[in-house]
This record gives sequence, structure tokens and C-alpha cells, in this order.
Amino acid sequence: MPRIAYLGPEGTFTEAALLQMVAGDMVPPGGAAGEVVPLPYDSAGGALEAIRTGDTDYACVPIENSIDGSVIPTLDGLADGSALQIYAEHTLDVAFTIVTRAGLAAADIDTVAAFPVAAAQVRKWLAAELPQARIVPAYSNAAAAQDVAGGGADAGVSTALAAQRYGLTVLAADIVDEASARTRFVLVGAPGTPPARTGADRTSVVLRLDNVPGALVSAMTELSIRGIDLTRIESRPTRTELGTYKFFLDWAGHIDDEAVGEALKALHRRCADVRYLGSWPTGAAIGALPPPVDEAARWLQATRTGGSA
Amino acid sequence: MPRIAYLGPEGTFTEAALLQMVAGDMVPPGGAAGEVVPLPYDSAGGALEAIRTGDTDYACVPIENSIDGSVIPTLDGLADGSALQIYAEHTLDVAFTIVTRAGLAAADIDTVAAFPVAAAQVRKWLAAELPQARIVPAYSNAAAAQDVAGGGADAGVSTALAAQRYGLTVLAADIVDEASARTRFVLVGAPGTPPARTGADRTSVVLRLDNVPGALVSAMTELSIRGIDLTRIESRPTRTELGTYKFFLDWAGHIDDEAVGEALKALHRRCADVRYLGSWPTGAAIGALPPPVDEAARWLQATRTGGSA
Amino acid sequence: MPRIAYLGPEGTFTEAALLQMVAGDMVPPGGAAGEVVPLPYDSAGGALEAIRTGDTDYACVPIENSIDGSVIPTLDGLADGSALQIYAEHTLDVAFTIVTRAGLAAADIDTVAAFPVAAAQVRKWLAAELPQARIVPAYSNAAAAQDVAGGGADAGVSTALAAQRYGLTVLAADIVDEASARTRFVLVGAPGTPPARTGADRTSVVLRLDNVPGALVSAMTELSIRGIDLTRIESRPTRTELGTYKFFLDWAGHIDDEAVGEALKALHRRCADVRYLGSWPTGAAIGALPPPVDEAARWLQATRTGGSA
Amino acid sequence: MPRIAYLGPEGTFTEAALLQMVAGDMVPPGGAAGEVVPLPYDSAGGALEAIRTGDTDYACVPIENSIDGSVIPTLDGLADGSALQIYAEHTLDVAFTIVTRAGLAAADIDTVAAFPVAAAQVRKWLAAELPQARIVPAYSNAAAAQDVAGGGADAGVSTALAAQRYGLTVLAADIVDEASARTRFVLVGAPGTPPARTGADRTSVVLRLDNVPGALVSAMTELSIRGIDLTRIESRPTRTELGTYKFFLDWAGHIDDEAVGEALKALHRRCADVRYLGSWPTGAAIGALPPPVDEAARWLQATRTGGSA
Repeated sequence: MPRIAYLGPEGTFTEAALLQMVAGDMVPPGGAAGEVVPLPYDSAGGALEAIRTGDTDYACVPIENSIDGSVIPTLDGLADGSALQIYAEHTLDVAFTIVTRAGLAAADIDTVAAFPVAAAQVRKWLAAELPQARIVPAYSNAAAAQDVAGGGADAGVSTALAAQRYGLTVLAADIVDEASARTRFVLVGAPGTPPARTGADRTSVVLRLDNVPGALVSAMTELSIRGIDLTRIESRPTRTELGTYKFFLDWAGHIDDEAVGEALKALHRRCADVRYLGSWPTGAAIGALPPPVDEAARWLQATRTGGSA
Repeated sequence: MPRIAYLGPEGTFTEAALLQMVAGDMVPPGGAAGEVVPLPYDSAGGALEAIRTGDTDYACVPIENSIDGSVIPTLDGLADGSALQIYAEHTLDVAFTIVTRAGLAAADIDTVAAFPVAAAQVRKWLAAELPQARIVPAYSNAAAAQDVAGGGADAGVSTALAAQRYGLTVLAADIVDEASARTRFVLVGAPGTPPARTGADRTSVVLRLDNVPGALVSAMTELSIRGIDLTRIESRPTRTELGTYKFFLDWAGHIDDEAVGEALKALHRRCADVRYLGSWPTGAAIGALPPPVDEAARWLQATRTGGSA
Repeated sequence: MPRIAYLGPEGTFTEAALLQMVAGDMVPPGGAAGEVVPLPYDSAGGALEAIRTGDTDYACVPIENSIDGSVIPTLDGLADGSALQIYAEHTLDVAFTIVTRAGLAAADIDTVAAFPVAAAQVRKWLAAELPQARIVPAYSNAAAAQDVAGGGADAGVSTALAAQRYGLTVLAADIVDEASARTRFVLVGAPGTPPARTGADRTSVVLRLDNVPGALVSAMTELSIRGIDLTRIESRPTRTELGTYKFFLDWAGHIDDEAVGEALKALHRRCADVRYLGSWPTGAAIGALPPPVDEAARWLQATRTGGSA
Repeated sequence: MPRIAYLGPEGTFTEAALLQMVAGDMVPPGGAAGEVVPLPYDSAGGALEAIRTGDTDYACVPIENSIDGSVIPTLDGLADGSALQIYAEHTLDVAFTIVTRAGLAAADIDTVAAFPVAAAQVRKWLAAELPQARIVPAYSNAAAAQDVAGGGADAGVSTALAAQRYGLTVLAADIVDEASARTRFVLVGAPGTPPARTGADRTSVVLRLDNVPGALVSAMTELSIRGIDLTRIESRPTRTELGTYKFFLDWAGHIDDEAVGEALKALHRRCADVRYLGSWPTGAAIGALPPPVDEAARWLQATRTGGSA
């Protein structure tokens, strides 16, 4: 049974994402659906590092949030240290479960435990529904539930999974002030053969570029000229050398798409370093597909051998 | 006296940055050095919005952290809503002040209040120096000091400014596990004439691009072909339309550099929308300067009039 | 009265083009319509060189033929030596006048003098109309008429102007096997202020590039990124250094178009050498006009001064 | 024995080039060295067309002259009509042989037959050595020798081969005013497998592009981004549609170079039409070689299968 580290403690959105990935068809190689060993870690970086030390087979970590942007510790954990590879992704709508202990009604609630980021996302709901309650900070969404279970707070802003884990009562479900917030999680492992191309895939790389004007544009041209649709780009300073950057790029397509293969070879030649972070299915299209090159390849083959094109 | 909103409460790193900017020569138009009215706000977005509503003249907000990356609420607050403009920046090393109440020694401390993000950055120090202490979450670095002042905790992970504000004793100064962490703050106001070109300036824009393959590369080529040195790029999904992005770009140079002026005009023609976020001094060079074009301009002028080039 | 050197002798298509340019509104500065001194030269290069030596004010030379392509001696004469500038162009349909002496009918003609290039263009007509005649080579279209006038041949493949000049009878006019052939002529002088922008103009340059891969693409990108429509490109080896090239580029637009001015400045900075060959009216559009940049320039101006865009 | 059409008549530089190609190792498939049937044609276009009609197996035609530039009839003959392919090239220094009849000395010579283009290239020599002689035009370099043999002129500006063919005496050899003139000839046949890659090869294509601004730059970027060194570019109007162009491009490298193969595929996808004119050995390097991509290809293969890169 594969071990999967995750950003814990038990009951986080990350664990919920992990369980949904396992229950679906995103089972990592080596494990039947549902048969995994989840291992909570207290940081995304720690969960990723556990792959390198052999303490886990996979890690499930958040990578992007529609409100807060990229999860930097995850990006840095993927870019630095020995190579890792992404095999799957799963996106969750951000929506909280307000938990309490059995027997407590809304009117009884004086204190609400909440991770500060979560508190900010349910502020309006709390003001309207629990106006009398005072908010007390918690370390995580799961810790908010633990606080309620331990009697440290009357209610907590937490997750459905945490309510279940800690035997709490659900006061309200699917609570969020702004409904569009979503978090994307990825399943990471040691480098290996990517999942087969599905036609709706994402490829991700980290580039390190020489500090030369135009280096980034040249690298991006290797993609655009091949019709590859970039869906994300983000520069991050490297920690080792002042004024140098690493660039995280995502695009629609799979390493087994011929155009993507050509682009990766070209980036490998051009860049100081290319770290391949994987190709994996997204379920739905995230951008324009790389152009198929079958016809052009046939033409080249015919031309090379004097056949008619 | 100009009013300056900031990410509060009193005693935050943001207020410290603000006071250093005012004490230095980064005084916003309209105020003599040191003569400002600081107004604490509970979010970066709120501080920026107060400029639009007229409740403040300026806002001081964090924009980038070397550990956590871009401050998304600041980026979104600059990109959405009516136009705002950046006039100055200031970078602080992240280093915490451990505060306590008069009369308490290290051995007396059982609880340490800390904003969770800060707690993570002084974990090793706490383990070594206050191993017996239990950490209790606080809402912000300044709130940790308030908790100490109010008796809710014995010590707090906070700032030098907060120690002063709340009459606390400094147990240890300049504490951080990883010394290289830095946060960059910006001073924002309504659109106006940028500060004069100093030769070490940053220009920042937000681009909205049509969802066409190669649109980003074409836009970036407008910069690279003019020798402009890009120092940051980050894509963010727009909230209004699925699959469309806005791009935050920074580069070395000032709107009054001729190459930058040409590039801005070209972007204005090419992009669905260009929002100019300002040109302001950085103190030290952040990248290669845009090439001066005086000689080429003279050549063009001579050529246009038949003079010898 | 300005002197105008041309590719002679008297009666060539070049002289015809020159006279039409003078009769039209393409009068060079310094001369009223029709008041010029034509000076025949025996080569395009010689006519151009006469400008440099002060032996003429202007030169009229062919630059491009729809059948034979560029007129290399003209291109080289413009690219090498001291700078010259093109002020006007005129295009003639290539169509020959078959000349003979008074009293001779088609049936009497045994020999036809023809410049070999011209002979090839009326081969079918001669085979059909003068099947009995033998072709004797002449040095030029005008020389063919001289040969007829001198009795060296019974008929000649020549021009309407030569028939007139040498007092010959026109046997047939507007003769050419393939009707689409056209020759473009240019009026060249010393560098000076270009004719005013008309909105239908051509600009021409010669670039010398460092022998670096991608140098040409970078130079052309300076044009394409500014929306400038290239209408001709041709590489020619430089004579001075092995493996180096000069490039002749034409595009739609005038040096006083802002986009063209910016592109010329950029080329001046980027290229080992840019020789400006002039901007002049073409009468009809030759390609897409450079985009007007007034709105973008206004936006930039407003942005620089904090005004609303 | 393969038949090879050439630009005749017997004794032209083209026949000389053809014989040298056959005597060397540039024997076309199907013929042992020296065993070919030369077939004179009166135009380069006619010689190329004879391949299409099956009247010849190959054609030898001039393609480029260092003084006069591209040989347009050859370019058009390659670009229009059904596909042809270049298999070899050979460059000759342009240097004339002054021929006369046995028994005639320089002082006896009153008339010199010369093709006008050739006459221009030996003008200074004639003025110095045969000042009394009058020049009479001939149709070609070979025809000048025929004129001498037939008694129509006392001497002729011709070739060594023509002197031999027509039993003439050589008055002076290797005569040319400007020593650097050279003509490049190509051996053309029906499409077939190109000669094997030698590491010093030329590839040539004709592109037809949609009439869109930037189309040419995009096509050229497909080459430059892959490190392919362009050695020639020339635009020619297409005859079929006004304002559309075809572009002749040459570069260093062979279709079996991986970078060239990728570039050809990319051009095939991008351009309205790509006509491959062949890859053939040049003997000596004409430019920077395409970068080998073996290491990048190995990296891609390893990455695709999870192996270490």
C-alpha cells in the first residue's frame, strides 16, 4: 500500500483532496483504489522532502489557490533539492464547515476557533449568523476542530472531514463569503514514467535562465512558435545567486505530444537548467492543445526519401 | 499632513516600513518629512480601497516577500478597481522582536503568542531558547504584542515598533531562523506624475491580453527588443472571464527613459489593456538599465532632415 | 536646371521613364516641370557615381524588373560608396516598339537588330510576324534603333522614344510576348530632406549585420513588432568580407510615420550599419500602412504627467 | 548514361561547370563518372522544363552570380511548375578566354565578338590590349566563339571550352577586369532521396506565405530559434496574385540534421506552401552548422520514461 504524505493534521482540505484523488481514478502506481497510508506532515515542504528521504512514496500538497495565488513552499519544494514529479491534480472548491460539539446551538456559541486565513473568508457569515461570538485563532482548519473537540472553543471554522474525524456536529456546511475560491492540489512522487496522454493534460517545468536580456522571451518563443498554450508563468528569485530567477511555466499538453517533446528538447538546449515537473491529466482542457504534427512528420519523411509529399 | 493607510494594527512591520519611508526622503508630495497621519487598516485590500474612497491620501502595503512570494491581495488591489499608482518602495529584513512584560525572565515564560506565519520563522529559536513554552496563535505580529500587554500570553513574537507602542520589554531582538527573508513594501496613491527618474528605478504594469497563443510572447518581445530588463513576471487568472489572465511585469527603468516610453506605447497598442502601476526609485539598480537612445534619436533627426548622420 | 544622369543612350526605357517623371509631378527640387538636362551614361553604376563626383544632380536608373528581378548594379551603386538617396519612383510596362526605316514594309525586312534580353521578350511576335528575318544582336534597345538608322539592320526592337529620336518609322507598337512585364525606375540624388509623407510611401534601407545567428530575424522583428509591412527583402554578399551580407529591405511607410521612425532608430542601434535609402511616394499603396500611434502617444503623455488616459 | 540538359550552346561556362561536376565526384545517380549525355538548351528555364517533360534526366543551370545576383529564370524555373530537386552545386571563377583564328595576331584584330555582359567584364582589358578593335555583340559567350570560327569577327570574348570546341586559338586566358566574380551552378533533377549528409551541406526552400504582417519573421524564427544559419534570402513576387511573395531561403545544414528536420516540419505547418529544393554537399562550410541535438534527444527520452536525465 503506497504511503502518501500530506499537509496535515488530519481533517485538512489537503487530506480531503487526497482521499478524493484516491477514491477516484487518480490512484498512484502501486496502490489499488482506496488502499493508501496517509501520513500527515506539518508543512508542504516537509511532505515533499519525505519523498526524498524515502519516508513516503507520494505527497499530496496544495499548489495554487484562486485567492492567495501560488503556494510558495510547494513551488520551492518542487524546484529545489533532488527532482520530484507531479502525477495528478485535484481541485476543491473552498467551502468551510462550521463545527460545534453535540448539544450546542448557535445561540450558545461564545467563541469560534479559526485559522486566520479561513476567518477572513467567512467573516460576513460569522457577523450575520454568530454576531455574539469572539474569534480565537487556530493553527489550521483542522486544529480549529481539535480546539472545539478539546473544549477550547465552542465552535470552529473547519472542514467536513475534520468534523467526522473529531466526532463533531455540523452547524453549517459549505460556508464561504465569496463562492469562487478554489484550491488546486497535486500528487507528487519520485521521477517516473508520466501517466499516459489523455488529450487533456498539463505539463509543468521550472527553468533556470542565464541572466541575459531576452533569455526569457527566447525560451517562451520555443513554446509559442510550436503553438503551445502557456497557462501559467511565475518568476521567483533563486536563493543561491542574487538577481537570478527561476521560472515556473505550465502549459496545455503532454510530454508525449510531439510539439511538447520538441519544445522540451529546445528548452533543454537553451536554458541553464530545465526541471521537468511532469505531465498529468487535468480532466478538462485547460487551454488550446498543441498542434498535432502527424501530417508534417509524414511530409518530412516523404521528403527525406524522395517520395511525393 | 497626508494621511497614509497601512496594514495594521499599530506595530506591524508595515507600520515600521511606513515610518522609515517617511523619515527618509520618500516623503509623498504634500507632506514634510515625518508629518503624516498613519491610519491602520485590517487588510492590504482595505488600505488600497481607502485611497479610492478618499479616506486616505496614500497606502503603505507589503507587495512581495522573499519566502512567501507576491502578496496577492496587494496585487489584486492594484490591478482591479480604479487606477492607483506606486510612488516609492522600501524593503525590510524580516527579523522579529521577542517581547515580554517587565519583570519576566526567559525561565518564567510558559506561553508565547505568535502569528502562525511568524511562529514558523522562529521555530528553531523558540525550541532552543524557550523550550518549555507553549505557542498560542495570534492574529498578527502586532496582536501578539497586544496579547502580552493584556496578559493573555507571557511573551510574544512581534516587532520592535510594537514593543515600543505597547510598553513591553524586549527579550531578544533580530530573531529569525533563516536570515535572508525580506519583505518589500510600496507606497501607493492616486495616479499622478511619477517621481523624477533617478537612473535606478523600477516600472511596473499589469497587462490584460487577448486569449491568443503567443500574445504574451509578443508583448514581452516589445520589452526585450528594446533592451528592457524584466525583473518579475507573474500570471494571475482574471476573475471576470474563465481562462483569461492578467500579467504583472516589473522592469528596470523609468517611464521617462525613451526605451521605456516606446515600450509602453507599444504595449498600449498591442494589449487588450495596460495598467501603468508607476515608476519609482529603488535606491540601487535592480537590473540592466534600458539603453539610452540619444545617439539613435540624433541619427534619426539628421536623417529626416537630410543632414549628415 | 537640374542635370539628370540616366542609363542611356538616348531612347532607352530609362530615358522614357525619366521624361515621364519630369512631366508629371515628380520634379526634383530645383527644377520646374520639364526643365532638366538629361545626361546619358552607359551604366547604372556610372550614372549613380556621377552624383558623387558632382557631374550630375540626379540619376534615373532601373531598380527592379518583374521578369529579371533586382537590377544588381543599381543596388550595389546605392549600397556602396558614399550615401545617396531615392526621391521618386516610376514604373513602366515593358512593351517594345518595332522600328524600321521609311519605305520598308514587313515583307522587306531581312534583319532585326535587338538587345538579346529584348529579343527574348518578343520572340513569339517575331516568329509570327517577321518569320523570314534574322536577328542581329544590339547593345541596347536604343542601339537597336541606331543600327536601323545607320543601315546596319532593316528593323529593330526598340522604344517609342528611340523611334522619335532617330527619325524612324513605327512598324508595330506595344509589342511583348508576356504582357505583365514591368520595370521600376528610381530618381536618386544626394542625401536630403525626403519628399513629404503622402500616406502611400515606400521606405528603403540597406542593413549590414554582424555575422551572428538570428541577427536578421532580430532586425526584422524591429519592423514586424511595430506593424510595418515589409515588401521586399534581398540578401547580397558584401564584397569586403567573406560570409557577410548586406540586406536590402523595402516597406510601406515614410520616415515621418512614427512607427517607421522608431523602427529606424532601433535598427540604427541594433545593426552594424543602417543606410537609409529614402522615403518617397509610390502613388498607390504597396502594403499595409504602419499603424498610427497618435492615441498611444497621447496615452503615454497623459501617463507621464499623471493625467487620465 | 544519364542525359543532362544545360544552358548552351556548346562551350558555355555552364557546360564547363557540367563537365567538371561529372569529372569530379558529383556524378548523378545512374551514371559513372564522365559518362553522360550533355544536351544544350537555349535557356535555363527550358533546361529545367526538359526534366519535367522527360526529355532529360538532369539539368545544369547557373543559379547565382557574384556580380549580377540571382539568376531569376533559374529561381522561377525551380519555384513554379512541378517539383524539382537540386543534387549538387559547383562554383566557377568567371574568367574569359580571348579566342581568335589561327594566324591572327593582336595587331590584326579589328572586331571582337562579345556577349554584352561579358564585354562589360573585360572592358578595361580590351581597352588596354586591343585598343583598335571594335566590339560586335554576340548572343552568348559560346556564340562569340562561333562568330570567330565563322569569320564574322576576328576575335571573341569566350571560354576555354569553346576555344576547344570550335578549333580556335587562345589569344589570352583567364581575362577579367575584376577578379572576384564567380558563378554558382546547380545540378537539378526530379525529386528523390537527397545525397547523404556530409557535414558541409546546403538546404534550399521556397516559401509561399499568407499575406499577413509578421508572417515572414515567424517563418524565419522557426530557423533562427533552432540555431540554423540562413545564408541567403530573397523575396520575389508571385505571378499569380498581386502583393503576394515567394521567398527563397538557403541555409547551412542537411534535411537529415535533426534541427533542420524539425524546422522543415514547422515551416510546413506554418506556411501556405513549402517547396523543398534539396540538400546537397557544398564541399566547404557555408555557415554555422545546425546544433546537434543528440544530448537533448537523450534527455527527452530519459524524461519520457522516468529514467535519470
